[in-house]
Amino acid sequence: MKILVTGAGGMIGRKLVERLVADKALGGKPIQSLTLVDVVESPIPPGAPKDTKPITADFSEKGVATTLIQERPDVIFHLAAIVSGDAEANFEKGYRINFNGSWALFEAIRQEREKDGATSNYKPRFVFASSLAVIGPPFPDPIPDSLATTPTSSYGTQKAMTELLLADYSRKGYFDGVGVRLPTICIRPGKPNKAASSFFSGILREPLAGQEAPLPVGDEVRHWFASPRAAVGFFITAATIDTSGLGVRRSMTMPGVSATVGEQIEALRKAGGDKAVALIKRVDDPFVANIVKGWAGRYDPQLATSMGFQAEKNFDEIIKVYQQDEMGQ
Amino acid sequence: MKILVTGAGGMIGRKLVERLVADKALGGKPIQSLTLVDVVESPIPPGAPKDTKPITADFSEKGVATTLIQERPDVIFHLAAIVSGDAEANFEKGYRINFNGSWALFEAIRQEREKDGATSNYKPRFVFASSLAVIGPPFPDPIPDSLATTPTSSYGTQKAMTELLLADYSRKGYFDGVGVRLPTICIRPGKPNKAASSFFSGILREPLAGQEAPLPVGDEVRHWFASPRAAVGFFITAATIDTSGLGVRRSMTMPGVSATVGEQIEALRKAGGDKAVALIKRVDDPFVANIVKGWAGRYDPQLATSMGFQAEKNFDEIIKVYQQDEMGQ
Repeated sequence: MKILVTGAGGMIGRKLVERLVADKALGGKPIQSLTLVDVVESPIPPGAPKDTKPITADFSEKGVATTLIQERPDVIFHLAAIVSGDAEANFEKGYRINFNGSWALFEAIRQEREKDGATSNYKPRFVFASSLAVIGPPFPDPIPDSLATTPTSSYGTQKAMTELLLADYSRKGYFDGVGVRLPTICIRPGKPNKAASSFFSGILREPLAGQEAPLPVGDEVRHWFASPRAAVGFFITAATIDTSGLGVRRSMTMPGVSATVGEQIEALRKAGGDKAVALIKRVDDPFVANIVKGWAGRYDPQLATSMGFQAEKNFDEIIKVYQQDEMGQ
Repeated sequence: MKILVTGAGGMIGRKLVERLVADKALGGKPIQSLTLVDVVESPIPPGAPKDTKPITADFSEKGVATTLIQERPDVIFHLAAIVSGDAEANFEKGYRINFNGSWALFEAIRQEREKDGATSNYKPRFVFASSLAVIGPPFPDPIPDSLATTPTSSYGTQKAMTELLLADYSRKGYFDGVGVRLPTICIRPGKPNKAASSFFSGILREPLAGQEAPLPVGDEVRHWFASPRAAVGFFITAATIDTSGLGVRRSMTMPGVSATVGEQIEALRKAGGDKAVALIKRVDDPFVANIVKGWAGRYDPQLATSMGFQAEKNFDEIIKVYQQDEMGQ
């Protein structure tokens, strides 16, 4: 089978490609080629199929979607997007890339099918990286799958609109779409970034490496997490589940670990001792604290759970995944 | 104030324009001009302001939105759309008109504001005719405002996507949007049409005129109704409410009368006697019966009710409105 990955150079994209290369197959079918698209050159892991190629391109530029789709990939993992802060600061760019870019991929598939006339055998699985930013407060606790999408950002709006298109194109039979609403990924490897959620990883990652980390919110703040490894698992599951019973409910909130900052800290204590916990430095950051206040802490992802999507069970497991995958333990 | 109405030649559009002309004002402000857009020529009611003009154009054609918006209307009633069956049969056309056409109006406003540089005083009220087709089964009973939009048609998808854009453009301050999810309008004046919902009006309208009418479903079928007069009232209310407390919840399910076909028939009996009821002819139409089975019967439109939107209280009132407005009684 042929696989196309957009955003293949990103943190999750790279891990997804590594997993696909290691598995050599997807849903029991051998992988013949991987096409890896990103605005930066995507690394090719050792052992990748011979026909694997990186393409350095912006998928949302005119003509790129058509070029990518005319090779008729069997599975498309669409992870590429600009992040929330960028989409909020750059209104037109956000819609152009996150929404119109995704739509261009959908349309390229529909047009490719039309080449075959009245009927076409080409009907790829389309896995779309969505976001919990599609919903907005006030939040019931826990949040059911049936909650209306009332995004409070342009990014969330673009993801919610793409979810709607994904469902309609799937309903019409143009492709077989599954949308994956990711939890906050923790522990992200690498350095702190400018995302408001950065500290959720930082207060574990830095102390585990013997470094100090700032904590701008109180112990009571509750959030929804999954590891990078779990996120890769979500995409693999989305590519291989039986979608025949989904109807138009194509985008699903993923399972995760609901944990408070206090619970994160206790998990760190178990993994790294009081010494590690002492490296967490409480700081005042009303800007971040205020953003985080609008986030949700607990979901009831019944549909995804019933479809076999799996996350970690608790924060001890999330830390263990980081130690295994990033610290070589 | 200047008012723009798209879809001004349609059944509700014409009634809305008549009401605006009769009121001479909107929200306490005198109406100076009406621009009436439709693909057919919009009738101008007697007594309309001098600067009223009909424009025969497809609002979704390139450049039309910019032309309409550069006159800087204070209130825009956007009713134009292709209907559900047309959007389902003509995939590209439905998205082009119902979604991209609406987006073009939104963008034209944002671009018009940009002419003023960093700040603009131009921030119109944008009233958007949405639809209960944005949601889909399975339905809780009653259906809360917070139910996810899972449309089962391209038409519903296009309306749901436009609702999301309406909320985001409003959140960004580009305009002040309100989306109105209309109940099934009953009693529609005129002749039966090809809509699956046509019989809901037909079984009252035809017997009240001494003519037979087919009924393709059972007495137990429950649905959600408002009169054409109530629909016009929804649009007027949407144009004049204080939106400051709405946040991103810009599109609302309108109040209505939840009634079964059996209750419709008993209301007809009160208005027209057994003689009128005897004109209803039960017919087998599995195609219509099957479509109607997927529709919802009862909503709990708390937000719209709290904002002052009002429908009829029962079917007796709906029939009385028809007799007054269409039969001169």
